[in-house]
Amino acid sequence: MKSFIHCDRNSHFPPENFPFGVYEMNGEKSICTALGDYVIDLKALESLGYFDEIMNKDGKLFSGVSLNHFMSLGRVISRAVRKLLQDLFAESNPKLRDNPGHRNMCIIPAKRVRMVLPVDISGYTDFYSSREHASNVGEMFRGKENALMPNWLHIPIAYHGRSSSVVVSGTDVKRPKGQTRPDPEKPPVFGPSKQLDFELEMGFFVGTGNDLGESIPAGEAEEHIFGMVIVNDWSARDVQNWEYQPLGPFLAKNFATSVSPWVVTLDALEPFRTEGPKFEKELLPYLHTKGNPTFDINLEVSLKSETMEAPYTICKSNYKYLYYNMRQHLAHHTINGCNTRTGDLMASGTISGPSKDSRGSMLEITWRGTEPLKLPSGEERKFIEDGDTVIMSAYCENKDFRIGFGEVAGKILPAD
Amino acid sequence: MKSFIHCDRNSHFPPENFPFGVYEMNGEKSICTALGDYVIDLKALESLGYFDEIMNKDGKLFSGVSLNHFMSLGRVISRAVRKLLQDLFAESNPKLRDNPGHRNMCIIPAKRVRMVLPVDISGYTDFYSSREHASNVGEMFRGKENALMPNWLHIPIAYHGRSSSVVVSGTDVKRPKGQTRPDPEKPPVFGPSKQLDFELEMGFFVGTGNDLGESIPAGEAEEHIFGMVIVNDWSARDVQNWEYQPLGPFLAKNFATSVSPWVVTLDALEPFRTEGPKFEKELLPYLHTKGNPTFDINLEVSLKSETMEAPYTICKSNYKYLYYNMRQHLAHHTINGCNTRTGDLMASGTISGPSKDSRGSMLEITWRGTEPLKLPSGEERKFIEDGDTVIMSAYCENKDFRIGFGEVAGKILPAD
Repeated sequence: MKSFIHCDRNSHFPPENFPFGVYEMNGEKSICTALGDYVIDLKALESLGYFDEIMNKDGKLFSGVSLNHFMSLGRVISRAVRKLLQDLFAESNPKLRDNPGHRNMCIIPAKRVRMVLPVDISGYTDFYSSREHASNVGEMFRGKENALMPNWLHIPIAYHGRSSSVVVSGTDVKRPKGQTRPDPEKPPVFGPSKQLDFELEMGFFVGTGNDLGESIPAGEAEEHIFGMVIVNDWSARDVQNWEYQPLGPFLAKNFATSVSPWVVTLDALEPFRTEGPKFEKELLPYLHTKGNPTFDINLEVSLKSETMEAPYTICKSNYKYLYYNMRQHLAHHTINGCNTRTGDLMASGTISGPSKDSRGSMLEITWRGTEPLKLPSGEERKFIEDGDTVIMSAYCENKDFRIGFGEVAGKILPAD
Repeated sequence: MKSFIHCDRNSHFPPENFPFGVYEMNGEKSICTALGDYVIDLKALESLGYFDEIMNKDGKLFSGVSLNHFMSLGRVISRAVRKLLQDLFAESNPKLRDNPGHRNMCIIPAKRVRMVLPVDISGYTDFYSSREHASNVGEMFRGKENALMPNWLHIPIAYHGRSSSVVVSGTDVKRPKGQTRPDPEKPPVFGPSKQLDFELEMGFFVGTGNDLGESIPAGEAEEHIFGMVIVNDWSARDVQNWEYQPLGPFLAKNFATSVSPWVVTLDALEPFRTEGPKFEKELLPYLHTKGNPTFDINLEVSLKSETMEAPYTICKSNYKYLYYNMRQHLAHHTINGCNTRTGDLMASGTISGPSKDSRGSMLEITWRGTEPLKLPSGEERKFIEDGDTVIMSAYCENKDFRIGFGEVAGKILPAD
């Protein structure tokens, strides 16, 4: 697929992608897509009539300053928009190509804009679906024999996170303060977390939800999913360790969660479908899925301290390593009648892989600080230090193109 | 305080109260308050100019179909509105009393309207702040010696709940289905929950929140709190037991949470301030509170099966039994920089008291089903059965009046 807008071979945003996001320029926000090194203003395109064949003039595809309205229209509409964009930006189509006035109104160099949080996030749920991650953490805290909890191979474990503190890539994150108990024989102490960590995750946004009391069958789940982003679920391990029993993580996680700005549709990911792991235990029927329910998405985490000139790769993982897939996530979340809504974010949990270099958190990479990470600058890391920037990127690739997510980056500022 | 609207001595809504809510009549929603057996349409009063001294004509106190905008204006405004209402409805004030046209436009018999969810709930957090409840549950699951977890006396334990499934009193609740593992030697099974329970709680709504990275000191917390409601945190114990490790309750709770429709302001509760329990362990400074940080609120739960003619009281408790208070809840929630927003609901956790008849859940009342509850109809209950209605009510009382919350009622429908 060729466009009259130039795209490098390794661009995350070729004309096969067309992700959706929201940009800000001169204090104004608008809904956009990405193509090569440009953002395309979709509200502007709509006002020029380019989407009239999809949405009659009484309705709007792109309204407000988030993707929520567009997402709520369903996948039939977002599919049609993506297809129309592929046609409109095709090298051979003169319609927009040969209209410099319109091009000026809609096509903006990406470096001139600031991407903002694309979705008004209704609820945030975080799964725990990497067997390798759950096993690593279990082994550290309970020993190798009891690494996986008895429920793990039967049920996609999840907990509710905090949607208010989800921030977009580029937002600095202040080191949280809180209670920890470094010495189990003494009372807890108060101060900045000393074990600040990242978690490499992917998340999906619900486009169209379900009513309270209804369930979404696994076989229909993908029609409810608008698209995916990269998620960094920042975690304060020392806070978590002290607070999490018996009701799970709370302040250890809700100080910030970073997401990438571009929402990549499942349609764009279609060429990268794959099977996913075999299920060791027979799952209950509501969790059965057919065909290739997951995607081959390369994931990478890099770290840059303040003294380093370039980021250093510390983890290479893949979305396909996850044991439970998105269809199972949504089917499980709603099997009890829980309603979901446009803009719900459902993250995967840390995506660790089978090898040592695919561990998706500092907790695992340094094995709870016992094997510090050596950086090219000569520095060592057990956890994340002030001034460190954590960058996660994700893309699918075949012989012809990449479908990328861009990145989610966040720098840690010292506690007050 | 006497009003020209008659109020019974035992009314929950005397002129000392003036709670806030949202009603629906003929398909239209509006913001209202309660006085005796009437609702007062506050949007109608505002449009007639009765609040002009508080809000100039460019602004609106009551806009939209939830209390969120009004709550976001802060307690200075809601205090002024309540005071103005007390003056406007005073027996001696002819302004509205002697204007039958205006009275007809604003004052509606409560039985003619349907109360709806008063707040667009941003986030829902549930604490676990009753020592008696935590001890009862701990004793059942871990024995008397290890009843309280080591962290409990130091930290107000909480988890994030699901805001999408919070419903208003009167909404039927469908019995959830899910995975349980009744036999620990066998694989889990799927079906309707067999251990459906209620949890007697109170919750507060955040009026004005805090920015990400900032904290709300305990001493300032009440200025951020708009008011309180009764909360029934429905729970499927068998689902919870199988799913909750290690990340806490998820599907066991998120199928429904019921709240009472009237939000009672802290100003109305002021005469009922009380000290609360002594802290057994020295708390960290950010959790210190001065004066009387809690309220003496009588709580009652009653149950009505389909064969019974009247509800039967099964629990009498009190909000003051809680170990951790609201100021501590909000200070703790934000100590790590987590932002809160207008419309956040923060519930207390099950409020059990020291005596057997003050246990706030069936789990505790029947001691995990081992001591079934006998109903006046001759029926027995271990947990909640299909067709049962659970009703919770709450009020403060002194020698002159009651400040009441009304009730939160919910009937259980069979699973599909």
